[in-house]
Amino acid sequence: MMNVIGASVSEATLTSHHETRDIVLPNQTDHVPQVAVDIGGSLAKVVYYTPSSPSKGGRLHFKIFETERIDDCIDFIAKLMTSARALAPNINQVLQATGGGAHLFYNLLKRRLPGVVIEKDDEMECLVAGLSFFITEIPYEVFTYNELDTNPIQFEETPKNIYPYMIVNIGSGVSILKVTGPNQFTRISGTSLGGGTLWGLLSLLTDAGSFDDMLAMSKDGDNRNVDLLVGDIYGTDYSKLGLKSSRIASSFGKVFKKGVRQNKSSFEQSDIAKSLLYMVSNNIGQIAYLNAQQHDIKRIYFGGCFIRGHPITMNTLSYAIKFWSNGDMKALFLRHEGHLGATGAFLKHRTLPKSNLSCAFPI
Amino acid sequence: MMNVIGASVSEATLTSHHETRDIVLPNQTDHVPQVAVDIGGSLAKVVYYTPSSPSKGGRLHFKIFETERIDDCIDFIAKLMTSARALAPNINQVLQATGGGAHLFYNLLKRRLPGVVIEKDDEMECLVAGLSFFITEIPYEVFTYNELDTNPIQFEETPKNIYPYMIVNIGSGVSILKVTGPNQFTRISGTSLGGGTLWGLLSLLTDAGSFDDMLAMSKDGDNRNVDLLVGDIYGTDYSKLGLKSSRIASSFGKVFKKGVRQNKSSFEQSDIAKSLLYMVSNNIGQIAYLNAQQHDIKRIYFGGCFIRGHPITMNTLSYAIKFWSNGDMKALFLRHEGHLGATGAFLKHRTLPKSNLSCAFPI
Repeated sequence: MMNVIGASVSEATLTSHHETRDIVLPNQTDHVPQVAVDIGGSLAKVVYYTPSSPSKGGRLHFKIFETERIDDCIDFIAKLMTSARALAPNINQVLQATGGGAHLFYNLLKRRLPGVVIEKDDEMECLVAGLSFFITEIPYEVFTYNELDTNPIQFEETPKNIYPYMIVNIGSGVSILKVTGPNQFTRISGTSLGGGTLWGLLSLLTDAGSFDDMLAMSKDGDNRNVDLLVGDIYGTDYSKLGLKSSRIASSFGKVFKKGVRQNKSSFEQSDIAKSLLYMVSNNIGQIAYLNAQQHDIKRIYFGGCFIRGHPITMNTLSYAIKFWSNGDMKALFLRHEGHLGATGAFLKHRTLPKSNLSCAFPI
Repeated sequence: MMNVIGASVSEATLTSHHETRDIVLPNQTDHVPQVAVDIGGSLAKVVYYTPSSPSKGGRLHFKIFETERIDDCIDFIAKLMTSARALAPNINQVLQATGGGAHLFYNLLKRRLPGVVIEKDDEMECLVAGLSFFITEIPYEVFTYNELDTNPIQFEETPKNIYPYMIVNIGSGVSILKVTGPNQFTRISGTSLGGGTLWGLLSLLTDAGSFDDMLAMSKDGDNRNVDLLVGDIYGTDYSKLGLKSSRIASSFGKVFKKGVRQNKSSFEQSDIAKSLLYMVSNNIGQIAYLNAQQHDIKRIYFGGCFIRGHPITMNTLSYAIKFWSNGDMKALFLRHEGHLGATGAFLKHRTLPKSNLSCAFPI
C-alpha cells in the first residue's frame, strides 16, 4: 500500500528553478516496487519513490527528460531499478508506463529493462488519477493566480464537492477532460495549439535554445509591436461592443506588409516571444472556457509541462477564464502540474480503489 | 431606392483570379449617390455602383486595397466621385464608411474628399446587413464546400427560416456574431488568431511576398514534416479515444529540439505554410463550433478577406465544423465573402427597412 496519511509537499530549498518538489510520505512502510513514466510527444516524466529510513517514511521524486533523448530517460530508470533490486532482490519490479510513448517505445523499454515488468496504462485514466491524488491528498498543492494581488499565488483548500470539474492538460498539444466522479471522465475536446506550437514557432523565430530562455525572453517583450490592437484599427476603443483599444484584435497583425520581406530580425525577439505566449495561452483559455460553458463546469484545472510555473502564462490563462466567464469560472494551477499523468500511473500499480480516493492506495 | 429585383452575380469571365464578381442590378433606375468603404486592420474594401445605361440597370463593383496604402484607396474613391459628379452635378455625394478605419481615418477622408458627406456606419451592423442582402437577394451566392465531392462547390438556396445563424468574419482578427432576426444581432465572441496571424507568421517564416504566393505555397506542402501527429506519439491510433494516427496532436510540434538552432531553412517553406494554414483554419473552425453549440445554432456563415476562395482553407473550416458537430452544423461560404461589411454600408445609405429584407432598399 501507498500510505498517504500526512503527505505533503517538501518545502526544502530547491537547487534549481525548475526542479519539481518532492512529496513527503511520512507514514509509508511497505516496499514500493514500481517506477512510473509518462512519455509524451516532447517530454517524458518520471515518478519514483525512495525510502528515507528502512522502517518508515520516504519521498516521491519527479523528473523530466526529453522524449527525443528517451535513452537518457531509460538509463535513469534502469539505475533506479538496479538500486532498488539491491535493497529488495526478490520482489518483481514494475514500470508503469503511460502516454503515447508507452506504446511507441514499448519494445525498447522491454529490451532495455530486462527483468522489469512493463505495465501500459491509459494516458487519460492516469491523468485523472494523478490530478485526483494531488487535489484530494496534498495540501498546498492547488492554487489560483492573479498578478494584481500582493501575493499572486493563493493556495486553495479543495472543497468537499468538486465534481464536475475540467482538466486542461497542456503538453505538446492540449487535451480537455470533463471529470464527473472518481475515475469517471470523458475527453471532451482538445487543440493542436499547445506547448509544441509555442516552442516550435519560438525556435524558428528567436535564438532561444531552451524553454527557460524563451520564457525569460518573453518577460521583457512588448507584444504591441507585432500585434494589431483594437486601437490600431479604430484609433480608440470600440466602445459600443466593449472592446478596449488595448485589446489584441490580431496576433501578429502588424507584421505582414505587401512586398516587404520580413524576417526575425525585423522585430525584437522578445516582442515576438511575448506575442506568441499571449496567443497560445489566450487561445487555450478561450477554448477551455467554451468547453466549460458547454458542460456547465466552474472549476478548471490546468496541468501539463507547458506552464512551468511561468507567471505570464498563468496570468494569461487566469485572465482569459475570468474575462470570458465574467468571473463565473476559476482557473486552478498545481505545483506538480507536469507530473499528473506519471503520478497517476505510479498510483495505478495494481488497481485504484473504486470509491472516492481514500488516504491509501493499494499496490 | 436600390432596386434589387432580378439581381444576380455576373458570370462574365474574370480577368484575374482574385477579382470579385460584379452584382448585376437590371432594374435599378434611380441615381445612386453613394460609394461605400469598409476599412479594416489590413484591407480596405470598396463597393460602388455604375449605371449600364442612362435609363435602367447597372452593376455593383467590389474592390480591395491595402489599409497601409489608404491613400491609393482614397484616390480611387475620389475618381469615382469626380466621374459621378459629372453625371449628376447637383446631387449630394456620400461616402458610407465603416470598419475601424472609418474612425481612424475620418479626418483624412474629410480632407481628401471635399464636398463629399462622410457617413460613419457601425461595423457589425454593416456586416449583418451585407450578409443579409447576399443570402436573401442574390442567387448562386452561398455555397458549401467539400473536396470529396466531384463538384466541391454546392450552391445553397437560402431556406425560409434562417434564424438564428452565425457569422464568423475572418479579417485580420475574427469576430463572431449571432443573428436572431433582421438587424438583430450580438457579437458573441472572437479570436485574435485570424488572417493577420497567418499572413504575419508566414511573412516571417517564408519568402512569400503576397497572400497569393502564400496560399500557392501551402498547396504543395506537407504539414506532417512540422506537425506532431497522434501517430508520432503513439505509433498507432489512440483508438480508445477515437483519435486517428493522422490527427494533428501539436501544430509545429516537430520543430523544437533542445539546443538545436532552427530557422526557416531547416524546413520546407511549403510545409510551414500548410501547417500554419491548417492551424489557423482549424482553430477558427473549432471556436466557431463551440460558440454555435453554446447558442444552439446550425448555420455558420464564414466571411471576410481571409478565405479568398482558397480550397484548402474552405475545406479545413468545413471539416472542422463537421468533425466537431458530428455533421449537425453546416459551414457556408459566400462569393462576396470579403465585401459583406462594405456592401452593408453601401445599403445603409439612409436607413434599412425595419422588416425582413425586401426586394428594395430605400436610399
